[in-house]
Amino acid sequence: MTKAFNEAEDGFQAVRFDGRDLYLIDQRRLPLTESWLQIKDIEAVIAAIANLVVRGAPAIGITAAYGAVIAARARGSDRAGWMNDLTRLAAARPTAVNLVWAVERMRQFALERGELDADALAEEAHRIHRADIEANRAMAQAGSALIQPGSGVLTHCNTGSLATGGIGTALGVIVAGARDGRIARIYADETRPWLQGSRLTAWELARAGLDFRVIVEGAAAALMAGGAVQWVITGADRIAANGDVANKIGTYSLAVLARHHGVRMMVVAPSSTLDPAMSNGDSIEIEQREAGEIWRAAGFNTQPSGFAAWNPVFDVTPADLVDCIVTEHGVFRPPYDFSAM
Amino acid sequence: MTKAFNEAEDGFQAVRFDGRDLYLIDQRRLPLTESWLQIKDIEAVIAAIANLVVRGAPAIGITAAYGAVIAARARGSDRAGWMNDLTRLAAARPTAVNLVWAVERMRQFALERGELDADALAEEAHRIHRADIEANRAMAQAGSALIQPGSGVLTHCNTGSLATGGIGTALGVIVAGARDGRIARIYADETRPWLQGSRLTAWELARAGLDFRVIVEGAAAALMAGGAVQWVITGADRIAANGDVANKIGTYSLAVLARHHGVRMMVVAPSSTLDPAMSNGDSIEIEQREAGEIWRAAGFNTQPSGFAAWNPVFDVTPADLVDCIVTEHGVFRPPYDFSAM
Repeated sequence: MTKAFNEAEDGFQAVRFDGRDLYLIDQRRLPLTESWLQIKDIEAVIAAIANLVVRGAPAIGITAAYGAVIAARARGSDRAGWMNDLTRLAAARPTAVNLVWAVERMRQFALERGELDADALAEEAHRIHRADIEANRAMAQAGSALIQPGSGVLTHCNTGSLATGGIGTALGVIVAGARDGRIARIYADETRPWLQGSRLTAWELARAGLDFRVIVEGAAAALMAGGAVQWVITGADRIAANGDVANKIGTYSLAVLARHHGVRMMVVAPSSTLDPAMSNGDSIEIEQREAGEIWRAAGFNTQPSGFAAWNPVFDVTPADLVDCIVTEHGVFRPPYDFSAM
Repeated sequence: MTKAFNEAEDGFQAVRFDGRDLYLIDQRRLPLTESWLQIKDIEAVIAAIANLVVRGAPAIGITAAYGAVIAARARGSDRAGWMNDLTRLAAARPTAVNLVWAVERMRQFALERGELDADALAEEAHRIHRADIEANRAMAQAGSALIQPGSGVLTHCNTGSLATGGIGTALGVIVAGARDGRIARIYADETRPWLQGSRLTAWELARAGLDFRVIVEGAAAALMAGGAVQWVITGADRIAANGDVANKIGTYSLAVLARHHGVRMMVVAPSSTLDPAMSNGDSIEIEQREAGEIWRAAGFNTQPSGFAAWNPVFDVTPADLVDCIVTEHGVFRPPYDFSAM
């Protein structure tokens, strides 16, 4: 376990590296089964990212960094082979900018050293992981400080310890806010199709001993109309230079509903999520997954014959619907300008 | 099969009565299995309504009418016992006004005749069913006429042949609009937790040979932002005198999203759905179901220990978010005044 990790403060360590092998809790099997995969080669790392064993942009980035170490050990001094591994690793999933960011950082580190040193790369991967733990702590503190005591919050997808290296982004704010008594009511979207909310966020909140209610996405508007929530708090998979936010499908819906009901919208994400090269959200590539997921992730063995679906994984929330973006460098408000970071 | 029913025009007859027994397709097992329940007593009718074997406000009303016939045969001349059966029948599910409406109409019919005549009651139940078939045809024609050729539509829950006596309410408009070439794109919310969209609406659309795409609820905003839909078309479980609409959880969310994106919102419901005694939606009782549904209806065998949910079945859409309400008596627009009906 990374030395900087502290269970009481940082939650649950879902990505573990012993210097040689990578251990991932299989998030597809939570909450009913806690099973771990021991991963020994780069193909298995790529498969784990592509198949959602590990998900959440920061956790994917950390996994990829350790994956680069595993690849380096296997390649020995074959730098060209390693670079090829990194290219395929970076393409394991689209949209999540942290994946590309972490792979690029490992590549730069190796280039600057001029040699492929797996032990040195392992130290760099641990630094990436430790920095995420620290960033999560900073975001949890900065974000929860914005919340009026007695508030209710609604979150989407899973952005906690399972999605990051530490306590989480949006869920880190919520756990911190609940522990210091600011947050009185926690609601979590179940988050179809993969049920990250009703499976993973619920698992983390129950594990933390916090009271919460899961809702189906369709109930969010009724919940807001009833006055139960004052903040929608989500993570981000990619943030454009103007503050447009790409995040799990359904985030944009929550942002529109929040604005309609006078509920505020907070996005919590480490600065590695920012993509200054993208001026706005229009150019963010949105990953589409195959239709059958809609049925299989609802308990059917198969997609019924003749049925079809439109199944985007992310949507883009325009910056003007986001009241603030919390990073480890502090709180940003519209009009967004991240150039000072 | 009710003589007035015409498969080509009216879709699929999901509620059938042979004069003695009631036959219901078990909607919980669709789309993978088409199994029928043969129902011989009032307890089984009440259970079928409570347990969602049959759902959809008009279909529930028709089922209840036939249930009153079954109860009358069993009670013989015991009018007090029959009245007691009707009271329990009317309480099988809250919110759906058609249930109470149909039971009350059967009670009134018996009171006016002054005797419990099961054959005469069967004729009255058939009249209720036939009137719904005719109302569906009228709504399908009136609603589809409002749609500009080339439009895309998004619907919620299931409002077709499985939910009514005939072609359906909102889905009837969509099927008619697609057949006459006005509707170019059909999207259906999967409709959590019970998946009426991805199971039942998809089953009906596939059966009708129409092209469609299922989406998770969270994708509706992104779909609208992309310009794919011009109308949201839903049914209603209860409509207050001012036009506030109680319908499946998620309808209100769609109405807010539609207004934000300049998409129009059409509610299609027979006049039996109107509740003139309710001045507005504030007094509509919203059925809450137990939390475990959220997990069981997503393929889990059980609600994980320590998990909790807020699980309302309906929400209320304020009249000012509804562009028009289509009934068998024509198209109503805000400010709503149904007194001429």
